Amino acid sequence: MEKPSFEKKLSKNYRNIPPSFVRNILNVAENKQFISFAGGLPNPELFPANEIRESANAVLKESAGKILQYAGSMGYYPLRDWIAKRYANKYSMNISADQVVITNGSQQAIDILARLFIDHGDGVVIEKPSYLGAIQALSAYRPEFCQVDLEEDGANLWQVEDWFLKDDLKLMYAVPNAQNPSGISYSASKRKHLAELLKTYDKFLIEDDPYNEIYFEHCFPAPVKKYATNNVAWTGSFSKMIAPGLRNGWVILPDELVPHFDKAKQSTDLNPNNLTQFVIQHYLTNNDLEKHLQAVQKKYNEQYQAMQEAINRFFPGDVSCTTPSGGMFTWLTLPAGISSVDLVQETMKKGVVFVPGNSFYTDGSGQEHIRLNFSNAHLPEIEKGIKIIASELKKMMVSVC
Amino acid sequence: MEKPSFEKKLSKNYRNIPPSFVRNILNVAENKQFISFAGGLPNPELFPANEIRESANAVLKESAGKILQYAGSMGYYPLRDWIAKRYANKYSMNISADQVVITNGSQQAIDILARLFIDHGDGVVIEKPSYLGAIQALSAYRPEFCQVDLEEDGANLWQVEDWFLKDDLKLMYAVPNAQNPSGISYSASKRKHLAELLKTYDKFLIEDDPYNEIYFEHCFPAPVKKYATNNVAWTGSFSKMIAPGLRNGWVILPDELVPHFDKAKQSTDLNPNNLTQFVIQHYLTNNDLEKHLQAVQKKYNEQYQAMQEAINRFFPGDVSCTTPSGGMFTWLTLPAGISSVDLVQETMKKGVVFVPGNSFYTDGSGQEHIRLNFSNAHLPEIEKGIKIIASELKKMMVSVC
Repeated sequence: MEKPSFEKKLSKNYRNIPPSFVRNILNVAENKQFISFAGGLPNPELFPANEIRESANAVLKESAGKILQYAGSMGYYPLRDWIAKRYANKYSMNISADQVVITNGSQQAIDILARLFIDHGDGVVIEKPSYLGAIQALSAYRPEFCQVDLEEDGANLWQVEDWFLKDDLKLMYAVPNAQNPSGISYSASKRKHLAELLKTYDKFLIEDDPYNEIYFEHCFPAPVKKYATNNVAWTGSFSKMIAPGLRNGWVILPDELVPHFDKAKQSTDLNPNNLTQFVIQHYLTNNDLEKHLQAVQKKYNEQYQAMQEAINRFFPGDVSCTTPSGGMFTWLTLPAGISSVDLVQETMKKGVVFVPGNSFYTDGSGQEHIRLNFSNAHLPEIEKGIKIIASELKKMMVSVC
Repeated sequence: MEKPSFEKKLSKNYRNIPPSFVRNILNVAENKQFISFAGGLPNPELFPANEIRESANAVLKESAGKILQYAGSMGYYPLRDWIAKRYANKYSMNISADQVVITNGSQQAIDILARLFIDHGDGVVIEKPSYLGAIQALSAYRPEFCQVDLEEDGANLWQVEDWFLKDDLKLMYAVPNAQNPSGISYSASKRKHLAELLKTYDKFLIEDDPYNEIYFEHCFPAPVKKYATNNVAWTGSFSKMIAPGLRNGWVILPDELVPHFDKAKQSTDLNPNNLTQFVIQHYLTNNDLEKHLQAVQKKYNEQYQAMQEAINRFFPGDVSCTTPSGGMFTWLTLPAGISSVDLVQETMKKGVVFVPGNSFYTDGSGQEHIRLNFSNAHLPEIEKGIKIIASELKKMMVSVC
C-alpha cells in the first residue's frame, strides 16, 4: 500500500502560510553554539526563577482544586483585573476586566482576531516590514496584504488612508511600540491620526504590543486604542515582561467583540493554561514588578548600546540603522546590491547568525535589510558577532564593486 | 461617533461556528449550585494535587532557565518520548517521539488538523451524535458535514463507505473510545474494518481519544491508528488522565504530516506551555501512574453504576440508554414526542441540569436524547438528580398523552 500523499490534500489556507526562516535558523543556531542575533529570545538571566517557583508552590497549596480543573475560556478573573487596572492607570483609559481575555501569548490573540475577521481575499493593511509570526497567522486566512511603508515615526498614514478607501478591507495589523523587526515606534501624533482614520473609515486595528514594558528611557506613548477604543484590539504579553515559557498574554477588546472572540477561542483550545495564570497573578501581586522591569530595561539598554557602538565602529558608513527606544531588535539597511540572504550564508560559516530582512515582508522583498536581536547575547559576543558580520559584509562589497 | 457594528464584518468561517450550549449552561449551573450532569468535568477529588505541587517545585528548581524560555513548537522531548513509549508498548505499535506533538488539550489538535485539511465545502464524515468541541472546531473551516449513524459497536461503516466514495471528502472525525456524548466504544472488528476503508479510499481519520485511560473493566481495544498508521492522527490528553487545568494533550501523526502540523501550529501560538509540560513529565516519571489511574477508573465506575441504577429505578421503561464501558458520559433516548430541550427547562426549575442531545448534532436533530455526565457529582446527588429528571419527564409524558 502506498503512503497517502498529503501534499495534494492540504487546505488552500494552510498552503498559504509562509515558512518561518527564524524557526529554521534557530534550530541550526541552537545546535551549534553560534553567536545568535537571529532569535527573539528574552535574556534568561533576567527571569525571576525563584519568585516563580515560590508562586507556583503558593498557588498549588491554596488553589489546586481550581487550578487543576477546566475553567472559563476568558481566563482567570483576578489576572484579567490586574491587567485592566494596570493599563487603565498607566494611560488614563477606561478598561474593565470584562474586556480582557487571556491568550497563549499575544500570538494566539492575533490568530483568533484573524479568524474572526478575515475572509479569503479581504485586504489587511500591514507594515513593511512586519512581525513574521503575524504574517504567518494572518496568511492562514488568505488575505490580500496591503503593505504600507514604515517610516521613522510609524506607518505612512497617507498610504494607510489610500488602502482604507477600499470596501473589502476591514483590518490593519501594526506593532506601534519597538516593532519586531525594525525597532521603530510610532510618534504620539501618528497614533492619534491613525485612530482618526480608523474611526472615519470604520476599520479595525490589531494593535500588537508585546514590548510595551521594555523601553530604554521613556515609557511609550498611549496606544492607538486610547483614541479609538471600539476600533482596536490591543494585545499584550507576559513573555517579555516576565518569561515566555509561561505562554500567557492577553488582548483588550471592544465590548461588542468580546463574546465573538470568546466563542472563536473556545473552538481552538477551550481555556488558557490555569497553572501559569495563577502563578503569574501571584507573582505580580507579591513581588516588586517595577524593580524587575527596571532591571530588564537597564540590561536591554546596555545590550542595545553595546550593539549600536559595535555597529558604528565596525560597519561601513553606508550601512544605516534604526534607533529603537526599546524592545529587543535593531534593523540595518545594507549598501545597494548586497543581499542579506547571501551575507548570512557567509557569517554562518564564521559562527554568527541573524535573520535576513525578506522574512518580514509579504512580497519577498527586503533582502537589503537585516534584523539583529540584542537581548540574548553577552556584551563581548555582541562586539565579536557584529565585527564578523561587518567583515563579511566588507568582503561582499569588494566583490560587488 | 457610532460604534462600529462588528456583525457585518465577521468572517464567514467564524459565523459558521455554532454556540456551545454546554458552556452557556455551565455558566448558569456554576452560579446556582445546581446538581449538574451537564459539564464534562473530571472529578476534582481525584486530582493528584500534592504530587503536582511537588513536581512543580522540583522542575522549577532543576530547569527554570529552560522552562521560562521560548521552546520548540513540537513540545518537550522527554514528554513526547514518554507518550510514544507508553502507547507503543500498550498496543504493540511503532510510535516514535518524532511523531508526537504536544498540544493544548486534544482540542487544539482537532483545530489544527481541521486547518490543515479543510477547504470550504469539503466533506467531513462525522458520527451522529459527535463531540460538540469538535463540531465547533471543524465548523470554523466550513466543511459539509457527512453524518453517519453511531451504533452500539461504533459508526455504521456502510454509511462511512458511501461517503468515502466522494472525491472532495478527505476527512473523518471519530471518538472510538467511550465517546462524548454517547459513551459508545467501537468494537475491535469495526476498528480494523474502518482502517481498511481509510486505506482503500485514501481518506484521513482524526481519531480523538481523550478517554483512553478511563475504562471501567477492560482496557479499550487497539486504536484504528494501529491498522492504518499513515491515514490516522491519533490524539490523547492528560486532561482526564491527570487534570484538565494543565491543558496539555498530544497528537500522534504520520511522519509525512509532522512538519505541516508543526508549521500550522506555530502560527497559532508558537509553542506549548513549558511549565505544565515539565510538571507532567516529572509527575509521570516520579509517581505510580497505574495506581492513580486505577483509583480514577474505580471511582468513575462507581459513579456510573450509581447513575445507571437510578436510571433503571426511576425512569419509565420506554427510556433507553447506552452502556458505556468507560469515559464520563451516558446517553438516554426519551420516549417519542418528548423534547429534551423542553425537559431541561423543567428540571432546571428543580435545580438539575443536563445537556439536550441536539447540541451534539450538526443538523439540529437529536432532541429526543440527553447527555448525562456522571464524573462530577456525588453519589447521593446522582440519585437525587436522576429522580428529579425522571419525575419531570413523567409529567411531560402525561401532558403529551
